Amino acid sequence: MSDNPSFVLRAVEDVVYEDRPIPDIFDDEVLVEVKKTGICGSDVHYLTHGRIADFVVEKPMVLGHESSGIVSKVGKKVKNVKVGDRVAMEPGATCRVCEDCKRGKYELCPDIVFAATPPYDGTLARYYRIPSDLAYKLPDNLTLEDGAMMEPLSVAIHSVANIAGLRSNQNVVVFGAGPVGLLCMAVAKALGASRVIAVDIVKERLDFAKSYAATETYVPPPFQAGESRIQYSQRNAQQMRDQLGIEDRGPKAIDLVVDASGAEVSIQTGILIARTGGTYVQVGMGTPEVTIPITLLLIKEITFKGSFRYGPGDYALAIALAAQGKIDLKPLITHRFAFNEAIEAFKTTKAGKSADGKGVIKAVISGPDVSPNDF
Amino acid sequence: MSDNPSFVLRAVEDVVYEDRPIPDIFDDEVLVEVKKTGICGSDVHYLTHGRIADFVVEKPMVLGHESSGIVSKVGKKVKNVKVGDRVAMEPGATCRVCEDCKRGKYELCPDIVFAATPPYDGTLARYYRIPSDLAYKLPDNLTLEDGAMMEPLSVAIHSVANIAGLRSNQNVVVFGAGPVGLLCMAVAKALGASRVIAVDIVKERLDFAKSYAATETYVPPPFQAGESRIQYSQRNAQQMRDQLGIEDRGPKAIDLVVDASGAEVSIQTGILIARTGGTYVQVGMGTPEVTIPITLLLIKEITFKGSFRYGPGDYALAIALAAQGKIDLKPLITHRFAFNEAIEAFKTTKAGKSADGKGVIKAVISGPDVSPNDF
Amino acid sequence: MSDNPSFVLRAVEDVVYEDRPIPDIFDDEVLVEVKKTGICGSDVHYLTHGRIADFVVEKPMVLGHESSGIVSKVGKKVKNVKVGDRVAMEPGATCRVCEDCKRGKYELCPDIVFAATPPYDGTLARYYRIPSDLAYKLPDNLTLEDGAMMEPLSVAIHSVANIAGLRSNQNVVVFGAGPVGLLCMAVAKALGASRVIAVDIVKERLDFAKSYAATETYVPPPFQAGESRIQYSQRNAQQMRDQLGIEDRGPKAIDLVVDASGAEVSIQTGILIARTGGTYVQVGMGTPEVTIPITLLLIKEITFKGSFRYGPGDYALAIALAAQGKIDLKPLITHRFAFNEAIEAFKTTKAGKSADGKGVIKAVISGPDVSPNDF
Amino acid sequence: MSDNPSFVLRAVEDVVYEDRPIPDIFDDEVLVEVKKTGICGSDVHYLTHGRIADFVVEKPMVLGHESSGIVSKVGKKVKNVKVGDRVAMEPGATCRVCEDCKRGKYELCPDIVFAATPPYDGTLARYYRIPSDLAYKLPDNLTLEDGAMMEPLSVAIHSVANIAGLRSNQNVVVFGAGPVGLLCMAVAKALGASRVIAVDIVKERLDFAKSYAATETYVPPPFQAGESRIQYSQRNAQQMRDQLGIEDRGPKAIDLVVDASGAEVSIQTGILIARTGGTYVQVGMGTPEVTIPITLLLIKEITFKGSFRYGPGDYALAIALAAQGKIDLKPLITHRFAFNEAIEAFKTTKAGKSADGKGVIKAVISGPDVSPNDF
Ligand SMILES: NC(=O)c1ccc[n+]([C@@H]2O[C@H](COP(=O)([O-])OP(=O)(O)OC[C@H]3O[C@@H](n4cnc5c(N)ncnc54)[C@H](O)[C@@H]3O)[C@@H](O)[C@H]2O)c1
Ligand SMILES: NC(=O)c1ccc[n+]([C@@H]2O[C@H](COP(=O)([O-])OP(=O)(O)OC[C@H]3O[C@@H](n4cnc5c(N)ncnc54)[C@H](O)[C@@H]3O)[C@@H](O)[C@H]2O)c1
Ligand SMILES: NC(=O)c1ccc[n+]([C@@H]2O[C@H](COP(=O)([O-])OP(=O)(O)OC[C@H]3O[C@@H](n4cnc5c(N)ncnc54)[C@H](O)[C@@H]3O)[C@@H](O)[C@H]2O)c1
Ligand SMILES: NC(=O)c1ccc[n+]([C@@H]2O[C@H](COP(=O)([O-])OP(=O)(O)OC[C@H]3O[C@@H](n4cnc5c(N)ncnc54)[C@H](O)[C@@H]3O)[C@@H](O)[C@H]2O)c1
Ligand SMILES: [Zn+2]
Ligand SMILES: [Zn+2]
Ligand SMILES: [Zn+2]
Ligand SMILES: [Zn+2]
Repeated sequence: MSDNPSFVLRAVEDVVYEDRPIPDIFDDEVLVEVKKTGICGSDVHYLTHGRIADFVVEKPMVLGHESSGIVSKVGKKVKNVKVGDRVAMEPGATCRVCEDCKRGKYELCPDIVFAATPPYDGTLARYYRIPSDLAYKLPDNLTLEDGAMMEPLSVAIHSVANIAGLRSNQNVVVFGAGPVGLLCMAVAKALGASRVIAVDIVKERLDFAKSYAATETYVPPPFQAGESRIQYSQRNAQQMRDQLGIEDRGPKAIDLVVDASGAEVSIQTGILIARTGGTYVQVGMGTPEVTIPITLLLIKEITFKGSFRYGPGDYALAIALAAQGKIDLKPLITHRFAFNEAIEAFKTTKAGKSADGKGVIKAVISGPDVSPNDF
Repeated sequence: MSDNPSFVLRAVEDVVYEDRPIPDIFDDEVLVEVKKTGICGSDVHYLTHGRIADFVVEKPMVLGHESSGIVSKVGKKVKNVKVGDRVAMEPGATCRVCEDCKRGKYELCPDIVFAATPPYDGTLARYYRIPSDLAYKLPDNLTLEDGAMMEPLSVAIHSVANIAGLRSNQNVVVFGAGPVGLLCMAVAKALGASRVIAVDIVKERLDFAKSYAATETYVPPPFQAGESRIQYSQRNAQQMRDQLGIEDRGPKAIDLVVDASGAEVSIQTGILIARTGGTYVQVGMGTPEVTIPITLLLIKEITFKGSFRYGPGDYALAIALAAQGKIDLKPLITHRFAFNEAIEAFKTTKAGKSADGKGVIKAVISGPDVSPNDF
Repeated sequence: MSDNPSFVLRAVEDVVYEDRPIPDIFDDEVLVEVKKTGICGSDVHYLTHGRIADFVVEKPMVLGHESSGIVSKVGKKVKNVKVGDRVAMEPGATCRVCEDCKRGKYELCPDIVFAATPPYDGTLARYYRIPSDLAYKLPDNLTLEDGAMMEPLSVAIHSVANIAGLRSNQNVVVFGAGPVGLLCMAVAKALGASRVIAVDIVKERLDFAKSYAATETYVPPPFQAGESRIQYSQRNAQQMRDQLGIEDRGPKAIDLVVDASGAEVSIQTGILIARTGGTYVQVGMGTPEVTIPITLLLIKEITFKGSFRYGPGDYALAIALAAQGKIDLKPLITHRFAFNEAIEAFKTTKAGKSADGKGVIKAVISGPDVSPNDF
Repeated sequence: MSDNPSFVLRAVEDVVYEDRPIPDIFDDEVLVEVKKTGICGSDVHYLTHGRIADFVVEKPMVLGHESSGIVSKVGKKVKNVKVGDRVAMEPGATCRVCEDCKRGKYELCPDIVFAATPPYDGTLARYYRIPSDLAYKLPDNLTLEDGAMMEPLSVAIHSVANIAGLRSNQNVVVFGAGPVGLLCMAVAKALGASRVIAVDIVKERLDFAKSYAATETYVPPPFQAGESRIQYSQRNAQQMRDQLGIEDRGPKAIDLVVDASGAEVSIQTGILIARTGGTYVQVGMGTPEVTIPITLLLIKEITFKGSFRYGPGDYALAIALAAQGKIDLKPLITHRFAFNEAIEAFKTTKAGKSADGKGVIKAVISGPDVSPNDF
């Protein structure tokens, strides 16, 4: 293989391997030899649509942003890691000087350079360079696969631990049991949530959720003829209340709702089911506009917040909780591919299951020359 | 006149004066001789519709809840006020023992007894009894009319000072320049807001806002044929940005949006116009369900909160800011009526203007035997 | 035995059993038949000194305030518990109407009626009456002894969970491994603390701490001749840093210091050892004035807070964490006494060990007619 | 004059003018021609003692850090300012990558390069280079002298607005009416404080405070023979309570105490006088260890915080409040010197008054070739 083979998206459904130059690094940067990369829904979306919202792929772009690897070169000012260290790679390099970077909300930096968000290349290559503070040394008891999972886990940490500020003994409902929703459940459980209720329309996902981090599961009913979405959601919320013994106040109330489905009816049901004085956090990105029961939100004085990517401390907490065994990432990795099988990996993720019928939660692509069986 | 004449709503558009028994008081209560009562949109709504949401007038109910008066009797445990004191009356008596009452969010008490919210009688009577801690002695430089205005002012204090936590030098947009919106502007200004932008579709209200507490005003454009609401709001937000020099970050960004219009397009525009990392507070109650640009809310990590009535400390802060001259309530009282003109007062409020064409902001009904000209 | 036998402190070291009238209850109160009462340092202090600070025993006072029991009578408005329910009893009845009660800080209520704080009687009697919301039904898997322990556990919950706001993965040092310090450690661990370092000058207490909830222990060195307290504390802090690998920033830094010893040198060492930007919470009450390294506190921008008793939600969280098995209260109860052995119980607590040499952590006195062996 | 004349401290009381090389700038930096520099107590302290705490002047160091100037060169990435812009200069350049920098507490950065804190040179030179985001363009209505005052004003903003989080209508006591204390009062007033009580032992300073931003003043009594400091402070606090009508709760209570004196008795009195549930912020740096009434702090659940320099948003808010006319900086500048009169300026500051007997609040040294009378 070449020096820096890279998996490049040229246009919708048009991907090739290219040999790219090995990046030079600045004094405060490190060059990482990428070993494991998880595939995210957004990678698939760029492949199939060439854009997400206003981010349009206008020139060839390397895909991938959920990665770990081994440090192969360090700039001369770098102190936190050294060559040979196994690291999780935070994929967004921020400007450090804007208002948001300085006030502790760097996820909002307008000048962020985020892997595989156009026009910036991603991590599905042999080498990727990052500022050294975004390379987090992995503790010995975590694998490189665990390292790649720190990216989605940090999304969950950001929303549940930081944006929502979940506290011990609270009750949580998570809508959507995809990788992000499952990790939100895992974080909620790790932080001491009392009830963690998983909601999904796919039963297999709920079965997995139950075996993983949910204390209870709930399958929403099908739509009825003539019913509006909000009517559906009201019925759905009532059914949840009845079936799960949810109340509007007290120890049976839902302190926190996290939506990781992006579905309008989940969002509506979430607001309906949240406790008076409760918190709702939006993580899922689906239809850009949704109808919400706003008067109820007002009367219940719900705090409704958006959660975007991750910010200060999220990666560190993600690694710590995994290293302490409070969150187990291994069950989430259902499929493994070699670097030259990347197209197959994307197809499988898009299909949601492999040829053998096994459902995909997270598929991981190994780096060049790395065996998928070497975790 | 009788002992306790009361202005009673019996059914939709059916009001009469009744003579009600004078309430007995408990040891920790006071009996107030009501002197001034502002009319609120909700009073009018009960008169014209007989209900608001799930609150239905099922038996005759005295109207009115924005009141001040003079203490005429005190229970034997009462220490904070004495007979003869002029007081503002907080109209919601809470249970004191529920979770919300105890954790400092008594506005959420499920057992609140709120004046003129069915089934509880309101304050448009000669006498009204309240727990003594809800009777706030008025400083000498405030009138009884000011006292009655403490109720809507507390709504504004709650939303802007407490729920939003507005800080000095922030920029604020308030949608809706009715009494509540105007008071939100006044509070924002009193708390040191830098820009206070008033938005309304009625030009006269904006003119008033400009003369009162807004630093700038904005009239939304008319709808265009074939345009969806969200398309309209996007165009509206863009026009606001252009016209008022609003940016998404930095000193020209909008830190806080308050909606006091209840209009769906205001809510949409508000989310679109709020800064990255900004705060949005919903005060207006209009259509119970609205469509919002949720992905944008997520990406900007907006904190979106409902604000309901008022809680601990709101009345006290309202009185203090008025007494310090930071908020002037007098300009808001545009119409004054005697007790026996209550029907006329409601009609005028509903019409939005009096026979002479003067627009109503707040109409005040005096107590029995009190002259409307005696403020 | 009589109807309402009570263990009464008449003067310093002068206690007797008296038969007191059974209290009448109000509509919102319950009468509890007290079953288990833990002895607290303050009970002993009243016995031996007749006062704590400005609280002076001027007339005979029943001792005891860490209690559980069985509801024997309920007022007619009571809904949350019924006759026969096993309950933990929160011993401070607050006024509900003062500023602090209303804003969610009822622990600061100036009119609190606190059991066994003069002039109010305590719970070491057959019957004790409390407002019903202060009677917390015990889950089936908790014993009445656990119920009595909710009082000191709530002190720990208040300081660690609420005042400090401990978050998952933080490092904590607790000075003092008496019952309060041990419970602070247990709460820290239950909330997901990473390191929980116990500090005490009594090795046995540290051994217990290690077997209970501490991850590490530390014994401060003896004083050196001529050394000032602050010099000692600097040496002590340096030794802690060296011995335990504590740093001033990063994952080896101490996010939270809790003092539950009241010792001046602990307080000093705590401020010296806390991380830059860290939190320090004072729970221990010892000498009323202590010398602190204030410039260091300033430069490190430490947040230093007092924690007094418990407030909204603390009892509920205490019960929940115990019921979920996250905190085990049983190991703390080292000595058990019958009601008529109360004097012996106090003596043993004061001595710190029983005749058999066993160290006291918590001694529990059973109610009249209850066997100490019936937990 | 030479190219980059600089006012250099070589050893205790040994200062000279040296011609230093003009600094090169990086792409993200600006070179500022320094026009106005205020003298701070710390500058004087280095001159007279050669050290502050662990910061020791070991090699020649340029003094000065409260400066403004005109941008004379910009790096090629700089966008926020251009050559010729008048700017306030924030004197601490932080590392941007440490935990504290990233979480929005850059004042705690261990690698901060702070002007005139050894070993880093200060601003008393013709040229000083800073990262461009630390150069804040001055609005037209502010002078370069105002610009130099942004440094101490930001200290006050940090403590009162951010660390204390002062809210409208709160009552504040500020101990110490030197430049920092006076600015704390000005910030408190600008943020809407109700009472701003100035405490100082120098009557002239209080007279100034009263004319400037204090609503009331208080002179502590002299010590009495045999009295301990804490006894003195108790007497002092009682006298304050009596004289100023201060209570422990309610509208006459002190919500916030700021110490800007560094005096032990101020700190003690401050804790004694603060309301139950109140906040205390330490800004003054005096004796490194002080004795505090800790049990009282605990029982009142006071939040006691250190405030160090300034962090995100402080400079921007300082400039905004001054530009809006909410804080007037001009009265504070009592003495003006030319660049070649720097030694005289230091002497005058140290003496506390000029030869004509006029008390110094702030002395400003102009840049080379700038007239002291050209503000
Ligand atoms: N906020 C952020 O920074 C961020 C980061 C990553 C991903 N995301 C978003 O998070 C969401 C989840 O990501 P993922 O990778 O887990 O996606 P996913 O598609 O694997 O999971 C979504 C799950 O939601 C379920 N679902 C769909 N409709 C539902 C309904 N009506 N009720 C309940 N469940 C329903 C699906 O069955 C699926 O299991 C996506 O919308 C993604 O765009 C956001
Ligand atoms: N949250 C609470 O506790 C609380 C308490 C009192 C009132 N309210 C609500 O606050 C709102 C305001 O009350 P009010 O008494 O001032 O009512 P109001 O009807 O006098 O004022 C509403 C204003 O909004 C304006 N408006 C309507 N559509 C608009 C649009 N598309 N864009 C901009 N402005 C628009 C109207 O012209 C009017 O001036 C009401 O919805 C009321 O129900 C809420
Ligand atoms: N804040 C509150 O509301 C509240 C409530 C209850 C108890 N308290 C206080 O909490 C403290 C602890 O209560 P407890 O019942 O556990 O008391 P305790 O006396 O059993 O425990 C104190 C522990 O501190 C240790 N200690 C003493 N000096 C020390 C030093 N220099 N370094 C380290 N450890 C030292 C002792 O050996 C002992 O184990 C007491 O001061 C008590 O007054 C406060
Ligand atoms: N925290 C920070 O980042 C920071 C930054 C700058 C300055 N400071 C400190 O702030 C303090 C004030 O700075 P300054 O420049 O105004 O100093 P200053 O010396 O001019 O002012 C101190 C004032 O305190 C008064 N004072 C002394 N003893 C007093 C007492 N017992 N009671 C009341 N007042 C008393 C003095 O008379 C004087 O007016 C200094 O200690 C300084 O080191 C801290
Ligand atoms: Zn940035
Ligand atoms: Zn209630
Ligand atoms: Zn109270
Ligand atoms: Zn730093």
